[in-house]
Amino acid sequence: MKQHLKNEIRNVIYADNAATTPLSKAALSAMLPYLTEDYGNASALYSLGRRTRKAVEQARDCIAACLGADPEEIYFTSCGTESDNWAINGMAQQRAKSGCHRIVTSAFEHHAVLHTCAALPGFSVTYLPVHKDGYVCPEELRAALTPDTALVSIMYANNELGTIQPIDEVAAVCRAAQVPFHTDAVQAAGHLPIHVHQERIDLLSLSAHKFGGPKGTGVLYIRRGLHPAPLLHGGAQEQGKRGGTENVAGIVGMAAALKERTDSLPADAVRISSLRNQLENGLLAAIPGSFRNGGTRRLPGHLNLCLPGIDGEALLLMLDQVGICASSGSACTAGSIDPSHVLRAIGLSDKLARSSLRFSLGVQNTPAEIERMLSCIPAAVKRLQAL
Amino acid sequence: MKQHLKNEIRNVIYADNAATTPLSKAALSAMLPYLTEDYGNASALYSLGRRTRKAVEQARDCIAACLGADPEEIYFTSCGTESDNWAINGMAQQRAKSGCHRIVTSAFEHHAVLHTCAALPGFSVTYLPVHKDGYVCPEELRAALTPDTALVSIMYANNELGTIQPIDEVAAVCRAAQVPFHTDAVQAAGHLPIHVHQERIDLLSLSAHKFGGPKGTGVLYIRRGLHPAPLLHGGAQEQGKRGGTENVAGIVGMAAALKERTDSLPADAVRISSLRNQLENGLLAAIPGSFRNGGTRRLPGHLNLCLPGIDGEALLLMLDQVGICASSGSACTAGSIDPSHVLRAIGLSDKLARSSLRFSLGVQNTPAEIERMLSCIPAAVKRLQAL
Repeated sequence: MKQHLKNEIRNVIYADNAATTPLSKAALSAMLPYLTEDYGNASALYSLGRRTRKAVEQARDCIAACLGADPEEIYFTSCGTESDNWAINGMAQQRAKSGCHRIVTSAFEHHAVLHTCAALPGFSVTYLPVHKDGYVCPEELRAALTPDTALVSIMYANNELGTIQPIDEVAAVCRAAQVPFHTDAVQAAGHLPIHVHQERIDLLSLSAHKFGGPKGTGVLYIRRGLHPAPLLHGGAQEQGKRGGTENVAGIVGMAAALKERTDSLPADAVRISSLRNQLENGLLAAIPGSFRNGGTRRLPGHLNLCLPGIDGEALLLMLDQVGICASSGSACTAGSIDPSHVLRAIGLSDKLARSSLRFSLGVQNTPAEIERMLSCIPAAVKRLQAL
Repeated sequence: MKQHLKNEIRNVIYADNAATTPLSKAALSAMLPYLTEDYGNASALYSLGRRTRKAVEQARDCIAACLGADPEEIYFTSCGTESDNWAINGMAQQRAKSGCHRIVTSAFEHHAVLHTCAALPGFSVTYLPVHKDGYVCPEELRAALTPDTALVSIMYANNELGTIQPIDEVAAVCRAAQVPFHTDAVQAAGHLPIHVHQERIDLLSLSAHKFGGPKGTGVLYIRRGLHPAPLLHGGAQEQGKRGGTENVAGIVGMAAALKERTDSLPADAVRISSLRNQLENGLLAAIPGSFRNGGTRRLPGHLNLCLPGIDGEALLLMLDQVGICASSGSACTAGSIDPSHVLRAIGLSDKLARSSLRFSLGVQNTPAEIERMLSCIPAAVKRLQAL
């Protein structure tokens, strides 16, 4: 029975890497000492604590190097959601003192950004429109900035479409207007080359489990000179800006995973996008009326398809039965019956949004898996159409 | 070299279990599947996701049973600090709508409570005094309550002294005044029997790594009917009240550890407090002028000693050299040169506070270790006095 289950798992084609990724072997092996003998509190004075402190600081150095930041600009958090909440809440509180009470963001941000903005007391929020191909327009950002803008928050790449935003131009507009710029890079980190200093990013959120690291750990990069108010008050950890005993194993695993992905990023991007293109071309050719949502300047593994007339969720469940894991929207909101706010933001009707599917490939996917997907998925669509 | 290091670790006497605990074998083994093959996002619809969802919900059931709560009253967070911040911030926001703008707490709470209270905009904070023996007085709490009190936050047991607060009476005072009662039970959970419903606790914070679970995961219990505003806005996780992809391995490990500790709690408490008493009596007899800080109604493993004339931190470093791990205050504030606010709150001078040491024993400590501590520590004190 157990063996049967394992075989079943082994045969799964996991094409939902934007929801979460398998923990990389390098990350797990980096973590294990801190889940066993090296259990010390990183704030303790004795050697058992100093060893974990050293591991935490080495992880900070490693992550800073991967992102083009300085180590003291890297703050460990529990997830991308916490990082987004901290960046927005913290900058809002700090900038409110200078009379700034507006956040400018986009209509298709993750809910960790949208809901945080909406909950800010006494703040107005400007939502930039998103164009049909899934990008914001830097010119529209420039026009939206007001003297009371506290922060701009525009994601690096969209979680559902994979579309990569014009970060350089967005950052330039913000820097020219002297407005801090936060980017939710939860989908981008480990998948695209990022250099926060060169790209003039002021705050950046990432989440370890989106690039082969463990769940339950993330980073907020805060450019030197910016001082968002803390979100988690408490002990003196993280330069007194984020309380809570350090999740040493998580932090070390995150650094190992980000390093691994960063080192192999150019080669992986070529390989994964080639698999993705093969999947895209095959499905578009085999399923009449289907089309791609969003433009082509996107993350290597992302493919968002609209299959008019098909209920996306029903197709997902059918694919699950043949061992294919995909998503009908953001997995973070699975269980919700609302159609995706991202797809509505690029102009899809509710009906077309419900007919859309996201495949997100990762480092573990193989050409043989793409072949199997191309043989299974059009057949499943036909079966659904015949019902 | 590596073997040498391992031997060194094996010979360590870890007497700082209040700072953090070794991860229990049961917890690690419960976690491993979710760090390897069962990596699905618990919000995903396919079977890989449904399996992790099931694991998360079983963990919730298990933790609820350990605490005398209902599963839907258990919310997963990233640590005790987050739980404290959420409870206080969330209730403050919610109760402010009814014109309540005061928090009543005690002077010797953890910084996760004190700093959070101090940062609440537009709120006043009443700090109950703490008596010489390390307890708050329920009568003084009753007198401190005002019609505009939004929340009472009193810890279950103090982290430095181990003193167990009169929770039943505190809860009764709060319930009679219809003021919600939060308790930071980070030191108590897994070490004392807790039944939130019977004890009339409205909100309770705990942290997994204090009872053999992993770092980076915690719980906030919220009694049914209370609706603190969210701290982490985002996805629909945790009934829409705490966004962020579930840290499945962490959650499962926390449940396994809490269950293990709860099952063996009565026997462990007898055994650990007997070791602690042996240590206490031996040290008090061997070190002239030494005395215990705080009363005897305390956690089984805690011993806080004052050694007048001795610099606690210097002694700690000396003990580290013979492989004994202890603390000179709350490990969360190690690195700070301020004397402990807890010891000052019970009336110790700065000098005596700096001469104090905390030993906190746990399930792994043995009689042989106590013998070794009793032979090493008085000798180290003498060496320091001779300097």
